[in-house]
Amino acid sequence: MDVIAWRRQLHQRPELGFLEYRTASVVAEHLEGLGFDVRVGERVLDREARLGVPEDTESEWRAAVEEGYSRAALDHMRGGMTGVVARLDGNRPGPTTAIRADLDALPIREAATDHLPSAAGFVSERPGVMHACGHDGHVAIGLELAHRLASRDFPGSVRLIFQPAEEGLRGARAMAIPENLDGVDDLYTFHLGMGAPSGAVFGGVHGSLASTKLRATFRGRAAHAGLAPETGRNALLAAAHATLAVHALVQHGTADTRVNVGSFVAPGTTNVIAPLAELRLEVRASETAACEDLEARTRAALDAAAAMFGVSCEVETTGKAPSVVCDPELVRHVAEVATGVPGVDRADALLHDGGSDDASWLIDAVRDAGGRGTYLVVGSDLPSGHHSDRFDLDERSLTIAVDLLERLVRDPASRGRSPLR
Amino acid sequence: MDVIAWRRQLHQRPELGFLEYRTASVVAEHLEGLGFDVRVGERVLDREARLGVPEDTESEWRAAVEEGYSRAALDHMRGGMTGVVARLDGNRPGPTTAIRADLDALPIREAATDHLPSAAGFVSERPGVMHACGHDGHVAIGLELAHRLASRDFPGSVRLIFQPAEEGLRGARAMAIPENLDGVDDLYTFHLGMGAPSGAVFGGVHGSLASTKLRATFRGRAAHAGLAPETGRNALLAAAHATLAVHALVQHGTADTRVNVGSFVAPGTTNVIAPLAELRLEVRASETAACEDLEARTRAALDAAAAMFGVSCEVETTGKAPSVVCDPELVRHVAEVATGVPGVDRADALLHDGGSDDASWLIDAVRDAGGRGTYLVVGSDLPSGHHSDRFDLDERSLTIAVDLLERLVRDPASRGRSPLR
Amino acid sequence: MDVIAWRRQLHQRPELGFLEYRTASVVAEHLEGLGFDVRVGERVLDREARLGVPEDTESEWRAAVEEGYSRAALDHMRGGMTGVVARLDGNRPGPTTAIRADLDALPIREAATDHLPSAAGFVSERPGVMHACGHDGHVAIGLELAHRLASRDFPGSVRLIFQPAEEGLRGARAMAIPENLDGVDDLYTFHLGMGAPSGAVFGGVHGSLASTKLRATFRGRAAHAGLAPETGRNALLAAAHATLAVHALVQHGTADTRVNVGSFVAPGTTNVIAPLAELRLEVRASETAACEDLEARTRAALDAAAAMFGVSCEVETTGKAPSVVCDPELVRHVAEVATGVPGVDRADALLHDGGSDDASWLIDAVRDAGGRGTYLVVGSDLPSGHHSDRFDLDERSLTIAVDLLERLVRDPASRGRSPLR
Amino acid sequence: MDVIAWRRQLHQRPELGFLEYRTASVVAEHLEGLGFDVRVGERVLDREARLGVPEDTESEWRAAVEEGYSRAALDHMRGGMTGVVARLDGNRPGPTTAIRADLDALPIREAATDHLPSAAGFVSERPGVMHACGHDGHVAIGLELAHRLASRDFPGSVRLIFQPAEEGLRGARAMAIPENLDGVDDLYTFHLGMGAPSGAVFGGVHGSLASTKLRATFRGRAAHAGLAPETGRNALLAAAHATLAVHALVQHGTADTRVNVGSFVAPGTTNVIAPLAELRLEVRASETAACEDLEARTRAALDAAAAMFGVSCEVETTGKAPSVVCDPELVRHVAEVATGVPGVDRADALLHDGGSDDASWLIDAVRDAGGRGTYLVVGSDLPSGHHSDRFDLDERSLTIAVDLLERLVRDPASRGRSPLR
Repeated sequence: MDVIAWRRQLHQRPELGFLEYRTASVVAEHLEGLGFDVRVGERVLDREARLGVPEDTESEWRAAVEEGYSRAALDHMRGGMTGVVARLDGNRPGPTTAIRADLDALPIREAATDHLPSAAGFVSERPGVMHACGHDGHVAIGLELAHRLASRDFPGSVRLIFQPAEEGLRGARAMAIPENLDGVDDLYTFHLGMGAPSGAVFGGVHGSLASTKLRATFRGRAAHAGLAPETGRNALLAAAHATLAVHALVQHGTADTRVNVGSFVAPGTTNVIAPLAELRLEVRASETAACEDLEARTRAALDAAAAMFGVSCEVETTGKAPSVVCDPELVRHVAEVATGVPGVDRADALLHDGGSDDASWLIDAVRDAGGRGTYLVVGSDLPSGHHSDRFDLDERSLTIAVDLLERLVRDPASRGRSPLR
Repeated sequence: MDVIAWRRQLHQRPELGFLEYRTASVVAEHLEGLGFDVRVGERVLDREARLGVPEDTESEWRAAVEEGYSRAALDHMRGGMTGVVARLDGNRPGPTTAIRADLDALPIREAATDHLPSAAGFVSERPGVMHACGHDGHVAIGLELAHRLASRDFPGSVRLIFQPAEEGLRGARAMAIPENLDGVDDLYTFHLGMGAPSGAVFGGVHGSLASTKLRATFRGRAAHAGLAPETGRNALLAAAHATLAVHALVQHGTADTRVNVGSFVAPGTTNVIAPLAELRLEVRASETAACEDLEARTRAALDAAAAMFGVSCEVETTGKAPSVVCDPELVRHVAEVATGVPGVDRADALLHDGGSDDASWLIDAVRDAGGRGTYLVVGSDLPSGHHSDRFDLDERSLTIAVDLLERLVRDPASRGRSPLR
Repeated sequence: MDVIAWRRQLHQRPELGFLEYRTASVVAEHLEGLGFDVRVGERVLDREARLGVPEDTESEWRAAVEEGYSRAALDHMRGGMTGVVARLDGNRPGPTTAIRADLDALPIREAATDHLPSAAGFVSERPGVMHACGHDGHVAIGLELAHRLASRDFPGSVRLIFQPAEEGLRGARAMAIPENLDGVDDLYTFHLGMGAPSGAVFGGVHGSLASTKLRATFRGRAAHAGLAPETGRNALLAAAHATLAVHALVQHGTADTRVNVGSFVAPGTTNVIAPLAELRLEVRASETAACEDLEARTRAALDAAAAMFGVSCEVETTGKAPSVVCDPELVRHVAEVATGVPGVDRADALLHDGGSDDASWLIDAVRDAGGRGTYLVVGSDLPSGHHSDRFDLDERSLTIAVDLLERLVRDPASRGRSPLR
Repeated sequence: MDVIAWRRQLHQRPELGFLEYRTASVVAEHLEGLGFDVRVGERVLDREARLGVPEDTESEWRAAVEEGYSRAALDHMRGGMTGVVARLDGNRPGPTTAIRADLDALPIREAATDHLPSAAGFVSERPGVMHACGHDGHVAIGLELAHRLASRDFPGSVRLIFQPAEEGLRGARAMAIPENLDGVDDLYTFHLGMGAPSGAVFGGVHGSLASTKLRATFRGRAAHAGLAPETGRNALLAAAHATLAVHALVQHGTADTRVNVGSFVAPGTTNVIAPLAELRLEVRASETAACEDLEARTRAALDAAAAMFGVSCEVETTGKAPSVVCDPELVRHVAEVATGVPGVDRADALLHDGGSDDASWLIDAVRDAGGRGTYLVVGSDLPSGHHSDRFDLDERSLTIAVDLLERLVRDPASRGRSPLR
């Protein structure tokens, strides 16, 4: 299958974060067939470092088993351990180049008309789940790239990292471990689209925001609101105060910052003091340190709001990532290499990106170990924006991305840090 | 069937407010068979005066039709018009006595063990719906009473009012119309239990709270919380401010007052300015005028909270009732008559009741037209409180109630206001 | 001087709570002259139990010394210890009867026209301080009563307690000590006016509210609001949250309750994060236990609001009193004795009083030690209400009060608890 | 007198905004003496466009009259109209160059030790008022510059603008009128210090924030907090809600924004519902349009908070300025000219300034009429920061500033727009 065929097959079978059992199994099986050293699940993910793991990891795992996906792979992935790392040595000395693709889809019901997937008959087969951010393309690019590199005609070594649960900034932290990144010289994380048109390539991004996503659960005590209100402990009022307090903490002199309480759910009846309220919120900052400071003050405010009404507050981190900081030399190298890729009519250094991607965990880990990393963007005309129910890619960008990444492996930026290579 | 058999049958088939198609049909059919002049649905309910009508009145109506309930009655009740009024003249002159029973059940999943309905095999057949306040008993009492009065051996005239949707204070206002209450001299509304033990009867209540229940829906505008927060209009923040404002309005010097925001639902995602939030709240006061004042100031605060964030606010009254004020002479009469009822070992004047019942609409309407009304209580030992999933009645109290009401009809408090009678 | 002359002289020289140096000196000197055993200042006040002591106790003390008031008394009162207790034994056995009068005036500028003090030329000589609650009358009654009792023609023993700082509920707690109350059988605290007309006497009150008054000081850290807001710690925002939280705690099922943040002062400039904010607030309840519960939850909310913004919060009790609970037998006795007092045309048991008086500390202490106490009211037509700048008494009520108290001493309710008496 | 002598004399006689009667009189008299065409008061200020005019303009005016300052000038300045514009034509054709200096001091009590003014004996003679921002230097520079230009040996025409009330952004708007700015080709506004060291000159600033300062007065209705809270209308609660709402509005995607409620004053007593509360607040943004948007939403929130509690809200603009936007060519010209000034060791283009100055009104008005403007900075080592009570200038910077401005007049950036010149 070529990259477009892969992409369309994957588009039909989207899976949410930490539930990518089928996708990861297909990836693992295919790369093993090509001769890669493939490791999955518990061998490539730090179980405790995952964030926001959903509750239905077991039922989805059983479904995947019943549908006949590779049991060898699935046995390692049980419990939402849906990552894959595939390694291959080239036929001559050189650096270690790593490439990361993300596996997950979004909880969106795909439109039935007015976009290529519907016209060409490859819309999602899973109601309410959709590849609306292009990760189907990312995985297809990884698979096609593996195919091209299988001949081992490249210097050094290559490592393909397929990560679960990028949406919500939940999966990368668990893969940013020495087992996966040890010895990596150059790490390329990438994204299609991002507002850049087809034919454009950017070597990196700037302006990305560090972010932490939290779920705060306030638990108080119910009471009859008419007869004995003083015996209740009002979780709803605590959450309302927490909401206003968090929004008053945002201002910052040295970074661009944001907070948002995006969800407030305290379902109850009018005549009962609400015993339970749940907030979902996020903090963001253009500097990681400012984001940490804002998160710390936000957590203190959540706890204090609970104390204000005598209720408890449990705060869970459901997603988190530092800001993406790209290595300038790698950015330059990508832009240079991109110039020679067919179909590329603009190769530039940095794209402004006001969003967040947990690829930053991997880039930071590689940098901390002495390597370099970037987050490159391959432009793609989008008829409808990311996360919309009519999202689609310009499929020509898939080939550009494969060509670019192949060249980056064959013509590496680094000589490699190991003298033996 | 006797009153206990009726109660058990009704207990198995509970229906929520304004969806009591089956219950009302059975009542109407039974009373017609006994010779009463029976009017149902649109003939006894003011459609626009109902409060908090649910959305599934049509689907439930169709289900009742398909299950074969009386089409004659159902045709009048379509759209949630589930009330019945049955009239019968006695064989000699006298006053007009009205008695009101409420038809509806609660959205509670009945326990499967540890109470009589489970032991004796008459638990609710409808999952998630339960007669947990004893209205099954109230209806059974009305049916048995009709049976006893069918011989017409009583003075004046009797009117049996079966009202939908007492829970949430939603149905009585629509039945407090001249068509139903014209010429009524004495109105007896009643409740079983209420904390009073089996064998006790109270001629009326005091301390009942006037109450209004509201649903406030705030609608703003979604926006990306990171990229363009200023373009959003934050309904969640408006609702949080509204919540705190409403709770700050409650203090009152001349009445016992309460407010409670019991539900706050703004379900969204962390990275989007919340465009929608819904509050459910109530205000209460021991004086109807204070409740009106509190409601007016609460509505102003809800509107202002919306204006504060540039969002809209729609406020719907989902329930409402004045405080219950019982006629002293009628209270005394009930206590006197109750003394002679077998099984009654304590007959008293007023029970303190810190709750609310929309029977007050009917009592007030009768009083305004020159008649008298009360809200009597027939005690019943309760193994588990009202609105619990193990609620049950002491079935002996059913017979006491029927006996008491029968005597109140046969031995009326009034001579009747009409000289012709 | 007669009681009216005393009252007018005192009216001209009003002093605020804990600054009643001149008034207390005059009282002490006068009573010593009549043969009473007089103790003042540190001998009758628990220094640490005083509440809300002002900052200018030293400068006012020096002024009183310079003005030539009794140095013997003043030396004991330095530092705001402005209480007096005078004892006298009768000429025959009997119980110990105590009577309490309060000494302090209010920070109000007295009107220059339209009331008796201006017409008769005895308005306050101290600008901004005024006897606007009738305590001038209370002290005059105590002085005249002492005069009448000086002959010792009464059974048992009498104790006259002159208390500072009743306004704000600040002084009584410090006088509710065994040294003052040991052996007291019957305690009469009293007030003129209170809405009751001239000629009426009430043996006690009901409905009085327990109350605690607090001052909460939030201290944060200033910062430039434009350049470095995140380095500030916002005391103003903490106080705003505290205000809203406290007002949301008030509802209570078993008592009539109140909270009020009556003062919020955070004076600053627009471009600085406010480092300081002070709230003054009160909680009240018709039951002392409910008041304690409300105070505890209020303090927790104040602390939590501070923690919410990383600021400190210091809470000082500036006033406090339990609710007034009068002994029924003493109430009855007062009403009976009052019947015979010239000028009394209505003698009743209990007056409803929705306010607070710290006489309750003294009554409770006497009760705890086995005695009895009440808070009696001598009616007085008031042309303008308590605490208004045109407040005045009907001076005829002064004589009624003296007559009544004299009879209560001469004809005591108790036989006395000591067998030796 | 030289520039340093002038500065020291002015330092001793500081005056607050719109009260600079003496300073403006001295300026007017001096410049008239030098041959300038001098206009003052109502001839150069739009009375209604002034912001935050204080209440004591009359008493201060009378004091200045009594102290013997120029009655001719004072008669035009009555009511706080304290501006001066002085014009002089050069002896040859050329452009019109305008220079603006600000006159006002700050409400700060100057330190008595540890800075040059105390050591050299020229501290403020007016307790509580101090030139703590260097405007004394600015005025001295203007006076010395006038002296140097009096010979008319320069091309075109010069206009010296002395503006009141820069602090708080209150005075410039009223001087940004055609009468003052018509025909101006190049406008130089300037500031000493600003964090730049002695010897440095910057041709302009960037990063300056547009700002609006508001005073919101909430007026409700007092009531006894215990007896009749529902009859009160709580201004304090309205202001607390307003505070939290305003702080929740600040986030903005396209500009750096700030809000701050810096003062909250509701002085009252604990037992009264607070009838009055005053907030002082500011909004800022790096873009003028964003500031306008934020101000509009802030005003709506203030109004809504009032409506929430049935109180009124009056909002007064007490200060306002757009962000400072400097003309790039003028910036460059200043930097070039500065290179040749003795004592200047660094001449640069733009200094980052995160503050606000209402010079922007004048610059914008000149730009709108076809001219150019900038806000140049002459560095000055500061032993203690702006607005501190030990603030002082490096007096060498005064001479550098005079030299620089003189050269900018003699060697103008523009040829002038009038063909006749």
